[in-house]
Amino acid sequence: MEINAGLVKKLRVKSNAGMMDCKKALLESKGDLDKAEKILREKGLAVASKKASRAAKEGLIESYIHPGSRIGVLVEVNCETDFVAKNEMFKSFVHDIALQIAASAPLYISSDDIPGEVIEKEKEIYKNQALNEGKPEKIVDKIAEGKIKKFYEENVLLEQLFVKDNDIKIRDLLVQNIAKIGENMVIRRFTRYILGEES
Amino acid sequence: MEINAGLVKKLRVKSNAGMMDCKKALLESKGDLDKAEKILREKGLAVASKKASRAAKEGLIESYIHPGSRIGVLVEVNCETDFVAKNEMFKSFVHDIALQIAASAPLYISSDDIPGEVIEKEKEIYKNQALNEGKPEKIVDKIAEGKIKKFYEENVLLEQLFVKDNDIKIRDLLVQNIAKIGENMVIRRFTRYILGEES
Repeated sequence: MEINAGLVKKLRVKSNAGMMDCKKALLESKGDLDKAEKILREKGLAVASKKASRAAKEGLIESYIHPGSRIGVLVEVNCETDFVAKNEMFKSFVHDIALQIAASAPLYISSDDIPGEVIEKEKEIYKNQALNEGKPEKIVDKIAEGKIKKFYEENVLLEQLFVKDNDIKIRDLLVQNIAKIGENMVIRRFTRYILGEES
Repeated sequence: MEINAGLVKKLRVKSNAGMMDCKKALLESKGDLDKAEKILREKGLAVASKKASRAAKEGLIESYIHPGSRIGVLVEVNCETDFVAKNEMFKSFVHDIALQIAASAPLYISSDDIPGEVIEKEKEIYKNQALNEGKPEKIVDKIAEGKIKKFYEENVLLEQLFVKDNDIKIRDLLVQNIAKIGENMVIRRFTRYILGEES
């Protein structure tokens, strides 16, 4: 059996074990990564990975706690170099993103992140709403499309209006900063807590 | 069909609609909460719930960003009253918890939060490790138990040693604060980011 070099590399990163040990474990597990990691640990050749956590990108982790400490946000924004991560303009951009999330409670970063069934369910509700309001059937689809657009503007971070400048969307703020700083940036993930909310 | 009062209340909280409307929708949905919410929205009687987020408890949301901004933590600690949430001792306790999570990277708050299959897998690995090291079979179980205990001490927040005082566990710190402040407290949830980690 041929063991793929990429798989060996993955196992090395996960296990911190040597290359030959990883190869042998993968042969034994017939290419099953989890099983191979288990084999290495059982042989004492690897330690338990607490969590795969190797830094792959540069950037910043930032938080924002709203006064009163009942709303809090944690956000990661990536850039390409450590140099830019230390740049004041980048720092201020990341801070604005944390503030935006606290204030506007997005559910998703990009509209691509919304599961298809969520959109379908929303569309169906909007259509039936329009029908129940006595709207003619031929314009019901159009009404639903308009409401979906509004759903994006409310729930998708990149489509939200920037709380500090209602003339631009967060997407525009991102693009402006990419242009000014001259490096690609990605709003990677966020977590937003409200005190006592059901999760 | 009899509609349970608790269900009506839940729907009211979710939908912000009136009691009679909620009751009717639940009758129509035969007691299905999601369906009833959908019906209310289609009739224009409820707005989309962004996220159920009514504050059920008091407490604080706190964050800790490690210098360099490559590690960040968001944590919620609950207490019983707003009065205690504003207490400096409580604030300092919550801050210590955020610091602990940043420094010691727990995976769970309490050992009850660990899925059974995780424990089983760890146990199996420890047993086979011991066997592979040539340990006699009759003590292998005992060795595995000892290692599971260590696994808890490393990965469970309440079982970890407090980074600022290695003589006590976080569980002790919690109990001490409950006793000092005189109100129950619960470390409810946390999120920990490392820059660039795979999630």
